[in-house]
Amino acid sequence: EEVAKLLELKAQLGGDEGRHQFTLKTAKGTRDYNPKQMAIREKVFNTIISCFKRHGAENIDTPVFELKETLTGKYGEDSKLIYDLKDQGGELLSLRYDLTVPFARYLAMNKVTNIKRYHIAKVYRRDNPAMTRGRYREFYQCDFDIAGQYDPMIPDAECLKIVHEILSELELGDFRIKVNDRRILDGMFAVCGVPDDKFRTICSTVDKLDKMSWEDVRSEMVKEKGLSEEAADQIGQYVSLQGGMDLAERLLQDAKMSQSKQACAGLTDMKQLFSYLQLFQVTDKVVFDLSLARGLDYYTGVIYEAILTQTGPVPVAAAQNGAGEKAEEGVSVGSVAGGGRYDGLVGMFDPKGRKVPCVGVSIGIERVFSIMEQKAEASAEKVRTTETQVMVASAQKNLLEERLRLTAELWNAGIKAEVMYKRNPKLLSQLQHCEDSGIPLVAILGEQELKDGVVKLRTVHSREEIDVSRAELVEEIKRRTSDV
Amino acid sequence: EEVAKLLELKAQLGGDEGRHQFTLKTAKGTRDYNPKQMAIREKVFNTIISCFKRHGAENIDTPVFELKETLTGKYGEDSKLIYDLKDQGGELLSLRYDLTVPFARYLAMNKVTNIKRYHIAKVYRRDNPAMTRGRYREFYQCDFDIAGQYDPMIPDAECLKIVHEILSELELGDFRIKVNDRRILDGMFAVCGVPDDKFRTICSTVDKLDKMSWEDVRSEMVKEKGLSEEAADQIGQYVSLQGGMDLAERLLQDAKMSQSKQACAGLTDMKQLFSYLQLFQVTDKVVFDLSLARGLDYYTGVIYEAILTQTGPVPVAAAQNGAGEKAEEGVSVGSVAGGGRYDGLVGMFDPKGRKVPCVGVSIGIERVFSIMEQKAEASAEKVRTTETQVMVASAQKNLLEERLRLTAELWNAGIKAEVMYKRNPKLLSQLQHCEDSGIPLVAILGEQELKDGVVKLRTVHSREEIDVSRAELVEEIKRRTSDV
Repeated sequence: EEVAKLLELKAQLGGDEGRHQFTLKTAKGTRDYNPKQMAIREKVFNTIISCFKRHGAENIDTPVFELKETLTGKYGEDSKLIYDLKDQGGELLSLRYDLTVPFARYLAMNKVTNIKRYHIAKVYRRDNPAMTRGRYREFYQCDFDIAGQYDPMIPDAECLKIVHEILSELELGDFRIKVNDRRILDGMFAVCGVPDDKFRTICSTVDKLDKMSWEDVRSEMVKEKGLSEEAADQIGQYVSLQGGMDLAERLLQDAKMSQSKQACAGLTDMKQLFSYLQLFQVTDKVVFDLSLARGLDYYTGVIYEAILTQTGPVPVAAAQNGAGEKAEEGVSVGSVAGGGRYDGLVGMFDPKGRKVPCVGVSIGIERVFSIMEQKAEASAEKVRTTETQVMVASAQKNLLEERLRLTAELWNAGIKAEVMYKRNPKLLSQLQHCEDSGIPLVAILGEQELKDGVVKLRTVHSREEIDVSRAELVEEIKRRTSDV
Repeated sequence: EEVAKLLELKAQLGGDEGRHQFTLKTAKGTRDYNPKQMAIREKVFNTIISCFKRHGAENIDTPVFELKETLTGKYGEDSKLIYDLKDQGGELLSLRYDLTVPFARYLAMNKVTNIKRYHIAKVYRRDNPAMTRGRYREFYQCDFDIAGQYDPMIPDAECLKIVHEILSELELGDFRIKVNDRRILDGMFAVCGVPDDKFRTICSTVDKLDKMSWEDVRSEMVKEKGLSEEAADQIGQYVSLQGGMDLAERLLQDAKMSQSKQACAGLTDMKQLFSYLQLFQVTDKVVFDLSLARGLDYYTGVIYEAILTQTGPVPVAAAQNGAGEKAEEGVSVGSVAGGGRYDGLVGMFDPKGRKVPCVGVSIGIERVFSIMEQKAEASAEKVRTTETQVMVASAQKNLLEERLRLTAELWNAGIKAEVMYKRNPKLLSQLQHCEDSGIPLVAILGEQELKDGVVKLRTVHSREEIDVSRAELVEEIKRRTSDV
């Protein structure tokens, strides 16, 4: 026994072949998707892509790496999170950090001035991964953008309609879409007495209001950022405001706010936006919230962010996934979508600085995946990882050839069919495979069935069996699996 | 006029803002996919994925980069083509070179011993790109593999059936699938008097027979690789042989060949394979060809490769895409699929060296894309890049709100609808957009229609218009676009 233990230990230590020891892992912050995760991912993508197509969007794709200089100067201090490729001679390259900058590069390079496109692809950030909370270094982004010079707020309203449709269809629970405008924020800062050169840094502090108390935010403004107490308190008044079109109207009459041209432009557009949202019947979920700031520098107009609000099993998952930190798209706790208007980015790429106004939205798809995975985990229903409709089986020996012949007939008729790769598998193991992978039907062949020109068609869940003539088998399988 | 010209020149040189000059390009050997290319790509993927699902395959995904050591020692001298990431602290990483090695790593890491999976993703090779011939540094691979210990040749036959189905459905023209076996090749080398240590290098030379004459191959064997003339001539006898099950039977009786145990094992399996292929009714396209060698070292049994054979517009494209060089999957001229059995690769990753036998096939999807693109180019039919069913339009002014309201109604009913983002677009420009993007229907709103509770539904190609009541509009659109 002692010897057996020692041999086992030796085997664990690598066997006696002196084999090179690999580190069996994926790179830090990355993961494989197993078939179950892929099945959930496919379902989520289908819902989202259907919505994008319903709105007439085209699809584009860009390379996973860009020239390093293409990404330079677009992400502020987050640039340190960009993955660079090794200099192996030739161009200096970096992995894409998001899909927005490659999109702007694409528009400028191809002189595209009008497009409504979606792009679903992986992006890369050398962030400190918190994988148990659904934060990775390789993750999907799922972007929809409308580029082009149009009448104000119509494409912007469509983006919000899309968020509303997708979040409703994914059934993630109740949600709110917060809306604000960079011009309103800047106008507010101006009339509250924030010096021009402090707009961006004060904006970043305001952006923390979704996970810090006002007291802490105020303290950061005054103590760290050197803002006067009066200015901070005036900002505090405004950022506590929430409402709809009525709030925009009220602020247009506000003695201080109305002094800022920028704020007035933003507020007028906000009114317009809400009028379109009413036509789209989505105002139940949308709230004009002056505390919404969003991190990225490139926004120039309306900004928005969707959060899940429901308490219960689902939001617990959501909270776990982002508690106390920013989500992968640079949005806040519980956030599942975000975006806004960026009218200057394409111009940064155009040699003549020609601007192409853009507005877009990014669905926080990794958050959605982990919520869906937890829902699937909690649900009694099993996630199928194949779509197989029928297993071609046999209870008797020496029928491999007949099984293969029938399976090929079914494949050729477009039926999703499996057959065991064994000469003489046990019927029980064939039925067990159906149970395990949710295959609803079994087509059983035996000597008698072959003689009679029939197949015994078994329904897995009810164990019912009926003889079906070979000629009618395909139609019968289609009829019984029409909901698959 | 001179001044205007100078100003234009100045503008071309970058304007007067001293803007940073970006190099507006994608990285060498990479490309963007525009909406038209994406539409073709989606169609090809759908065909292939449907086939994989019909055969009960699951889907997995792995990260775009792996630990560098995971890829080390798997690709022979092609390792120099691997992209490394810059050492930014932490692990040393490389971009994946194919999907097979990550698959083997996945199986070993997760102790998976049985799986039928497909994986469609981009891989990276620092090759000398020949983009006009469809060769890129970033390209798709499209792999289907069956892992597990099964009775001989059943999964192998299914892989060939899959190639047959996919190439038939893609309508790329006539094709042949060449089959051989590494054990037959090795046995043949042994009985022809090739020294053991020259098997791999002579095998590489034989692999060139699809693009070099026998004389040149013979000369390389003798002059460069130092093989005896007698051995070379004996090989020459064998590699000219082509056939089916009959050829396998004949070689089993061959005085020399039958001396090799390995060759006999391979030939017996080849007979078995052909018997299954007969049941699958695919022997019309499959040929047992002793000149097929394939480059990769890790194959241990059956190997195969599909080539397009048709002359005419399609093969011209195929030839252009790979003339005189290897295709992206390491296969030969005109090759559109390839694969084989690799029973040892997973064991290289397992700490205890446990083997998981695998057989798989890779579809040469980039070749397929470029053939499909050329077919689309040559065809009169326009490739649609959206699926929009109806454009909500108006001939009169001030009906934006009514257009938006109707569009939202259609979206909510699942209709794919577009509306122009203008307050008062011209009817002509709305109709022109339909012509340009192939939208089949226009729902036209006017004061009279609104009063009557109807919509004028126009069929774009026939210019017919009928009034449809608002309540019946959704059904009528669905009815008319049921083939979309």
